[in-house]
Amino acid sequence: MNTKHLSYMELALKLASEAAARNEVPVGAIVVDPLKKRILSLSSNRTEELNDATAHAELLALQEAAIKHGGHRLNGCDLYVTLEPCPMCAAAISLARIRRLYFGAPDLKSGGVDHGAKIFNQNTCHHRPEIYRGINEIRSQKLLQQFFASRRS
Amino acid sequence: MNTKHLSYMELALKLASEAAARNEVPVGAIVVDPLKKRILSLSSNRTEELNDATAHAELLALQEAAIKHGGHRLNGCDLYVTLEPCPMCAAAISLARIRRLYFGAPDLKSGGVDHGAKIFNQNTCHHRPEIYRGINEIRSQKLLQQFFASRRS
Repeated sequence: MNTKHLSYMELALKLASEAAARNEVPVGAIVVDPLKKRILSLSSNRTEELNDATAHAELLALQEAAIKHGGHRLNGCDLYVTLEPCPMCAAAISLARIRRLYFGAPDLKSGGVDHGAKIFNQNTCHHRPEIYRGINEIRSQKLLQQFFASRRS
Repeated sequence: MNTKHLSYMELALKLASEAAARNEVPVGAIVVDPLKKRILSLSSNRTEELNDATAHAELLALQEAAIKHGGHRLNGCDLYVTLEPCPMCAAAISLARIRRLYFGAPDLKSGGVDHGAKIFNQNTCHHRPEIYRGINEIRSQKLLQQFFASRRS
């Protein structure tokens, strides 16, 4: 994993931390156009703030990136997210034609890439990104563990 | 199926027809609060108009309904949609805690309820709505067939 990918994930972790400070589940996501070396969107969970169960970091990042990209298909663009996407977000990543998905920690309970629905493994999935796992996994997991521990105390 | 459900699906079909007239894939969705006998949202596909691959009828209907409902969990609310939801929308329906899902035509190619990811059958799915299928199925199918035939010609 070269420094470019690590610095993008670093940015996503920063967004996740900021989400925790706003009492949102700490997940951060960014969409990058690697050819133009341009960050198209920076997002984190906003389900509480927006009163919207669909306002996950990845969905918001895809929506914002599409506006910047000027088209709803983000061909050639990559998405970095601190946690394994849920089935909703994984399916959205497929619909948006993301080229590469980089994610941090696995989500055994609600993930939709390597767990449960395994969105990209289905014959109804019409676009599969290349997938890179485990980038800064421990830091992402710690952020989530601290967040949920602080809510229980 | 009583007349109340048929009239809600009738409304969703009207929204789907209007989408076709705007060159959007003809799918319509509405969210209803049955206790208050109130329609919370009326939506149809807007992926082309909004340049957003996630702007499916169901997702937009859930987002608008959450604003009206005043909370991101639509407990007790029902969703009517003319086509079997894709995995993204099925997972969003679960996240939003929709009570009952009524849908029209099956979607063999891209559906996520009875096909492919079968979102509500997964152990990572934390809320399963009651599901009612095949309401005005033929009319919904015809709308879609006519739409795709007109684009091929």
